[in-house]
Amino acid sequence: MLGLMQHWPLVISRIIDYAACQHASREVVTRSVEGSIVRSDYAAIRARALKVAQRLVRAGIAPGDRVATLAWNSARHLEAWYGIAGAGAIYHTVNPRLFPEQIAWIVTHAADRLLLADVTFVPLLESLADKLATVERYVILTDRAHVPDTRLRDAIAYEDWIDEVDGDFAWVGVDERAAAGLCYTSGTTGDPKGVLYSHRSNVLHSMAMCAPDALGLASRSVILPVVPLFHANSWSIAFSAPMTGAKLVLPGAQLDGASIYELLESEQVTCTAGVPTVWAMLLQYLQKEQQPLTSLRRLVVGGAAAPRSMIEAFEARGIEVFHAWGMTEMSPVGSIGSIKPSVAHLRGEALIDLKCKQGFAPFTVEMKITDDAGRRLPWDGKTFGRLKVAGAAVASAYFRADAGILDDEGYFDTGDVATIDAHGYMQITDRAKDVIKSGGEWISSVALENLAVGHPDVAEAAVIGVPHPKWGERPLLVVVAKEGREIEPRSLIEHLRPKVASWWLPDAVEVVAALPHTATGKLDKVKLRALARLAARDLDGDGARIAEAWHVDRMRAGAAGNDDLNVFGPGRDRQ
Amino acid sequence: MLGLMQHWPLVISRIIDYAACQHASREVVTRSVEGSIVRSDYAAIRARALKVAQRLVRAGIAPGDRVATLAWNSARHLEAWYGIAGAGAIYHTVNPRLFPEQIAWIVTHAADRLLLADVTFVPLLESLADKLATVERYVILTDRAHVPDTRLRDAIAYEDWIDEVDGDFAWVGVDERAAAGLCYTSGTTGDPKGVLYSHRSNVLHSMAMCAPDALGLASRSVILPVVPLFHANSWSIAFSAPMTGAKLVLPGAQLDGASIYELLESEQVTCTAGVPTVWAMLLQYLQKEQQPLTSLRRLVVGGAAAPRSMIEAFEARGIEVFHAWGMTEMSPVGSIGSIKPSVAHLRGEALIDLKCKQGFAPFTVEMKITDDAGRRLPWDGKTFGRLKVAGAAVASAYFRADAGILDDEGYFDTGDVATIDAHGYMQITDRAKDVIKSGGEWISSVALENLAVGHPDVAEAAVIGVPHPKWGERPLLVVVAKEGREIEPRSLIEHLRPKVASWWLPDAVEVVAALPHTATGKLDKVKLRALARLAARDLDGDGARIAEAWHVDRMRAGAAGNDDLNVFGPGRDRQ
Repeated sequence: MLGLMQHWPLVISRIIDYAACQHASREVVTRSVEGSIVRSDYAAIRARALKVAQRLVRAGIAPGDRVATLAWNSARHLEAWYGIAGAGAIYHTVNPRLFPEQIAWIVTHAADRLLLADVTFVPLLESLADKLATVERYVILTDRAHVPDTRLRDAIAYEDWIDEVDGDFAWVGVDERAAAGLCYTSGTTGDPKGVLYSHRSNVLHSMAMCAPDALGLASRSVILPVVPLFHANSWSIAFSAPMTGAKLVLPGAQLDGASIYELLESEQVTCTAGVPTVWAMLLQYLQKEQQPLTSLRRLVVGGAAAPRSMIEAFEARGIEVFHAWGMTEMSPVGSIGSIKPSVAHLRGEALIDLKCKQGFAPFTVEMKITDDAGRRLPWDGKTFGRLKVAGAAVASAYFRADAGILDDEGYFDTGDVATIDAHGYMQITDRAKDVIKSGGEWISSVALENLAVGHPDVAEAAVIGVPHPKWGERPLLVVVAKEGREIEPRSLIEHLRPKVASWWLPDAVEVVAALPHTATGKLDKVKLRALARLAARDLDGDGARIAEAWHVDRMRAGAAGNDDLNVFGPGRDRQ
Repeated sequence: MLGLMQHWPLVISRIIDYAACQHASREVVTRSVEGSIVRSDYAAIRARALKVAQRLVRAGIAPGDRVATLAWNSARHLEAWYGIAGAGAIYHTVNPRLFPEQIAWIVTHAADRLLLADVTFVPLLESLADKLATVERYVILTDRAHVPDTRLRDAIAYEDWIDEVDGDFAWVGVDERAAAGLCYTSGTTGDPKGVLYSHRSNVLHSMAMCAPDALGLASRSVILPVVPLFHANSWSIAFSAPMTGAKLVLPGAQLDGASIYELLESEQVTCTAGVPTVWAMLLQYLQKEQQPLTSLRRLVVGGAAAPRSMIEAFEARGIEVFHAWGMTEMSPVGSIGSIKPSVAHLRGEALIDLKCKQGFAPFTVEMKITDDAGRRLPWDGKTFGRLKVAGAAVASAYFRADAGILDDEGYFDTGDVATIDAHGYMQITDRAKDVIKSGGEWISSVALENLAVGHPDVAEAAVIGVPHPKWGERPLLVVVAKEGREIEPRSLIEHLRPKVASWWLPDAVEVVAALPHTATGKLDKVKLRALARLAARDLDGDGARIAEAWHVDRMRAGAAGNDDLNVFGPGRDRQ
């Protein structure tokens, strides 16, 4: 027997309809790419989104078609999201920080028919245009006065483009399960993978994010997403802000400490969200300029683990840090670090310990940790296993890919390794591909790296597994010394000894001038492992000999001009 | 093109699964009907709900079957909700405050197969048992020691009943649109009407209620629903509390000021919700005993309009009053009075004026006000019209009733008349059937009544429309004097004159000893109008003559022993 309640599909247009009805004059403030501060509101965002939708339909865009955006956070970008989804089409946010070849690959894989781009990306697009065969037209997110002279196909200023219609339009009706958004995730290996959000998953994820233990958004909130709209579905903020009537402050292209600080203060922001890199820049600015934050109450940090010192620095300023974790495949938020009553008594170091964990799952997200055989592991804060997730806004498959990505229980394997404690707080301990499997037990490379950088001479550290005939794998520690310091490997091992189980101690320490990084600034362990494999040929797991052989190999490769293998610069010492 | 996100149906069992996983030891505290304070937690609630579901399936309860509860707020009642819905069946909450005949009618109409009842309701059920033909068995919500000797069919103690199974059970899978709950709404006329909630509507409504501008529930919240679970789906709290991990304090049968105060303090409640009557009792207690409220931050008042003095009294104690409005047909919350930034500057009287309105619609609720022809009226805070609603948790039809209840745009007519101001705040001005239509314009009976009770001599007031040959209807004011006071009708009219448009002024004032009320304590305007119709025969709309004739008729009827017409007692004066 079915209930007798109204049919009210969870489609994105309802969010902006609600905002324009109940919070019509609530501001959407943009630091525009052109430089000025531009003020709009939810009524105007909706009115202009309707014009976008109408214009798309006139251009022949049909439900399910993909329309790309390559843009910073701005009111126009936000309008475009609602307009594209409101035409029944799919907003495809392209990350401008990817390698140009990746951008071309993604746009072609998505078969984007239109591409809406900020002025700043016109040169990039011109360099790629020959490869973007599916793109019929480029819409530049500015007015006529600011459109550069360009050879991009049929390019037009956004303002001119939407002025070709009158806005007398109704959203194109779609099923709530219809695709609404597309975002690619790129790892260090393989092709990027497209995550295809539905209207329903976006609405449900955003409703969950409004709750006090998540973003805690109310109509009186002012939220500044430093996280770009193109970064994993904007962490829901493009939806959760209008859903609650929170004022939205969009920082455009300027994410440096001074620019973000200026907006936080001038707009009296109460909540902000972004990756550790931007918060490090903000902290540097605050410390250098001796400036206070007068309105900020809640700072959400995600995308990478937040350093302990960062959490401490903001908490010391009376700003509550919410350490979050998620993935593009999770829409993206999987957990967020609000304080449960069972840990509300914690103070000082113990509280910061808790805040270094990535929080707990909100309603609509389910988690488990398992061993390699898929057996569930206990939530004791010590045992770590593969982190797998299920929920209302978790991917079930990738766009245009046949491979199944869910386990027998319908969970998605995040590729992360984590502990979950008895209170439900999850802590990422490693990427699954980086964890070291020694004698059937797992050693966390990240835990060893964090301990190693606690040594006064160490600037950066990486731990990888190297093959071992008896144990399977053993940890190798590769470190960079701080400027003007020398690292004595034996002292580094002694530094680690009291902090970890004896079988966790690295078999070898390699001191190098620099470590290899990916385009997005993460340690490139694929390159490190390639070097280690090269070095480990014909050896029997003797760490010192592996390191020595590797060092020699590396030196040889460097001499031969092999840049890939010469990423470290000359090593200065080894155990 | 469909999105590629996981299929994750919005079913109620996911709420208690989540609570038992992430907030397992968070308490559910009950003042039991037996008298003691009983402490449970979400893990135990889930475990016992699984036993309820398992026991129901063993009893042959199939998906879609109705299982009734007649009970106060308690952990057992909560377990029963989740157990019934988790068996795929429908929890039917019966309001024990209804007339016994209505209870019999409702249980029979619903065809309830089982009835779970508190010990306190055994005598009531025994008096009705012959009429409850569909009920196969009675489960008494207590343990064996507390079950009274009863002739109720196959009666058994709840604890014995669930102990017949082991709890090794999985929830019965149902479509998210499946019916989960049934609640009847009864007016002053006609048969009660059943509202059939779906799993989906309950989950969505509760997610919306968690937001900071609604209940604002977090894991650290402690919520005490004085509102009974049987009152309009518990205002979502049976779902929104476990969904967030908020501690739940259930007051059982004792809703007097002293008992509620004791729980608010002993359990350090942060948020509570109930009807004005209970808050009046609490205020009396606080004032008499000179007691402070040390933890309460948010008080939600709904079910009837909150008196201004009540709002002022709680706000003066530093407790934020959230004036809410809803209907059984809306799951039930339609609006709630959080403070938007556009009104955040208001202080003093102006703030209280705002708080006397019933707030604004949360996401998932849509509102409009219309004239009798269905045309939308402006949101100016002055124009009032029929209030109509749509949304994710609004009824589309009544249970076992054929009549359509939605307008051409899919809106449900609430039967209320309201204004909505430019900020979106809605204020109920009348019931549609009580509004007075004079010369094509509407006069609010409630507004006149509120003004009349502002007169120092008036204890209670009622305004009804009486037929008028020229104007259609004209207002008649019926008042009760305060003890020891006399009302001078002319002075009452002069009291109203500067406050309303001249055509709003009542044509006549009738002073009576008492006004008729319904079983639930509301003014019974149906009875009043019956008297007025009787009195108005053969008259031409002369208010004074109508009142006089009415008075005479009433006296005559009273003398004839007609109780229905003698509800007022002797009038003491008239204009």
